[in-house]
Amino acid sequence: MQLCKFLGTKYSIIQAPIAGSDNARLVAAAAEAGALGSLGAQYRTPEEIQKVISEIRSLTSKPFAVNLFAFKPEAIPSDDQIARSRSHLDGYYSRFGITAPAAESVQKSIDSEAQLEAVLEAKVPVFSFTLGSLDEKWMKAFKKNGTLVIGTATNVKEAIVLAKSGVDAITAQGSEAGGHRGTFMGAYEDSMIGSMALIPQLVDAVSVPVIAAGAIMDGRGIAAALALGAAGVQLGTAFLTVSECPVNAEYKKAIREHDADDTTITKVFSGAPARGIKNSFITDNSEKPLLPFPYHNKLTRPIRQAANESGQIEYTNLWSGQGGRLAREMSAMELIEKLVAETDEVLAKLSPIHA
Amino acid sequence: MQLCKFLGTKYSIIQAPIAGSDNARLVAAAAEAGALGSLGAQYRTPEEIQKVISEIRSLTSKPFAVNLFAFKPEAIPSDDQIARSRSHLDGYYSRFGITAPAAESVQKSIDSEAQLEAVLEAKVPVFSFTLGSLDEKWMKAFKKNGTLVIGTATNVKEAIVLAKSGVDAITAQGSEAGGHRGTFMGAYEDSMIGSMALIPQLVDAVSVPVIAAGAIMDGRGIAAALALGAAGVQLGTAFLTVSECPVNAEYKKAIREHDADDTTITKVFSGAPARGIKNSFITDNSEKPLLPFPYHNKLTRPIRQAANESGQIEYTNLWSGQGGRLAREMSAMELIEKLVAETDEVLAKLSPIHA
Repeated sequence: MQLCKFLGTKYSIIQAPIAGSDNARLVAAAAEAGALGSLGAQYRTPEEIQKVISEIRSLTSKPFAVNLFAFKPEAIPSDDQIARSRSHLDGYYSRFGITAPAAESVQKSIDSEAQLEAVLEAKVPVFSFTLGSLDEKWMKAFKKNGTLVIGTATNVKEAIVLAKSGVDAITAQGSEAGGHRGTFMGAYEDSMIGSMALIPQLVDAVSVPVIAAGAIMDGRGIAAALALGAAGVQLGTAFLTVSECPVNAEYKKAIREHDADDTTITKVFSGAPARGIKNSFITDNSEKPLLPFPYHNKLTRPIRQAANESGQIEYTNLWSGQGGRLAREMSAMELIEKLVAETDEVLAKLSPIHA
Repeated sequence: MQLCKFLGTKYSIIQAPIAGSDNARLVAAAAEAGALGSLGAQYRTPEEIQKVISEIRSLTSKPFAVNLFAFKPEAIPSDDQIARSRSHLDGYYSRFGITAPAAESVQKSIDSEAQLEAVLEAKVPVFSFTLGSLDEKWMKAFKKNGTLVIGTATNVKEAIVLAKSGVDAITAQGSEAGGHRGTFMGAYEDSMIGSMALIPQLVDAVSVPVIAAGAIMDGRGIAAALALGAAGVQLGTAFLTVSECPVNAEYKKAIREHDADDTTITKVFSGAPARGIKNSFITDNSEKPLLPFPYHNKLTRPIRQAANESGQIEYTNLWSGQGGRLAREMSAMELIEKLVAETDEVLAKLSPIHA
């Protein structure tokens, strides 16, 4: 099936949630251009979530998605654990002249239930999640609201669990993808499955539409995803470099100037594994004691914020997939129109494997 | 361009070299069916190479390839280093009632120059290599013979080096692939690049035809590879389960019954990183001191041989890509005809990303 018919969008393209790097303007621009825009709401408070959703609605009447991490948090770290991990970051707090987060604020990192409640109340067209499965009460509540629910799988086992839980579609996150790994069953290292293997096996395993994600950057990637059986595609890195995306120019430049082998999977920024461009912060912290997600994220957040504001990208997370070199700087609408035209062109030119 | 026109085959399909698991019959069957058969010659002596090439020629007049590892060997290990690594394998030698290889035979593991000389003299239609680049004198000699030369890249930097060295085509080995990683520039961990990212970036970087490899198992994978810009495809795991492939039934069954996340990259069998299905041998040896490739391969060879002969596949290398579940048991000709028909079907059914 075509994802566009399923989502009610013009095109079978989703602008991926890029928590920490998006805003209402980007989501609305993608939606207005005919894709499904997605808001990465993970690091926003319930109040902030409500506010941004209102902003999106003031900018577009087209469908959009809100995304959260459906992870099961590990035990809250003790004051001692926090002090130990934080001491390794002292040099960064000093460099930027900022205050280290108090243990109490780290311990109160996130209120997942309140975030879900905020998204639910907003009756958004699409709710997508990653890093877990959704509890039955929430699944029922979203469905009752008429919200489409999309889960994320990095292996076949997860896709089967998600399908049984009642999701309406599944995003297949290939190992190529930038940002956080969605793995929630088994070690993430085992589920670094390339899209060429992941997509067809997921399509065979579940009956809901499968959305391809990971290094899809142009018409070639979109056509390939469709050939593998995907109903549509989700692009994150490709949208990080569009003009509406609020990340700084240095980050956009880095995405376009680094090869796939310049990226790595690291836990040093958030405590959870994610793909980004290698920099000093990754090199210098790889052996340091980290708190689990989301607590470590809270510890590094002011550092990353200060680094981003001053363009010192050696000290912040430069999430990027393995296709960064193919990224383009243009408006969201120009990118989306280009992707559609390129896909048509690739499909028209495909020739069989015999003469 | 279409790979079939370049290779002089009926189809743009290569049966990948699967050193240690192939024979003349498999290569000839693939060639007779219209693909390019490949002999994985790495573990054969120069005399054995000559003999198998003659066998292939007695079975088919169609084009075929011979493959070697173009690696630069590390320093020959000392008697003490060998004794140390070998002592950890004593339990396996005892289990199978076999003699451990003498230090001298391990030290004389391979004579790469003599292997290359044997392939050169045979004037084969295609010579392919992995794990390195080919020295100028050999490149010139093969070209003088009218042999097409195909190198293997796992990242863009390697592809550029190979193109400059004069190869006629480049195999893009995605992270999905089974068997040995071809990486020869940088750490292999950095070049675990999924095909969705690797193929288009290689196609953009070089002007020679790019051959997609890694988890291509059916018409969906082939169509996807073509969409990404590949001139054709190379399939290894898909050919491991065909009837002409001389590996045992237990191994074929394991390929079909394990998920992508049941495979891992390991050095425990040969000293070099390769993807295979997890088993006891991998679990029990991951922390043991290994010799570098090809010396460790020589140490474990009699164990793997005995394990294979007795069907005890917990003690041998079960190389498999991330698409093993999609493997099928049939003849090489049936598989190739099916792949071609499926690809035509996928291409015919592809629809655009707008309604």
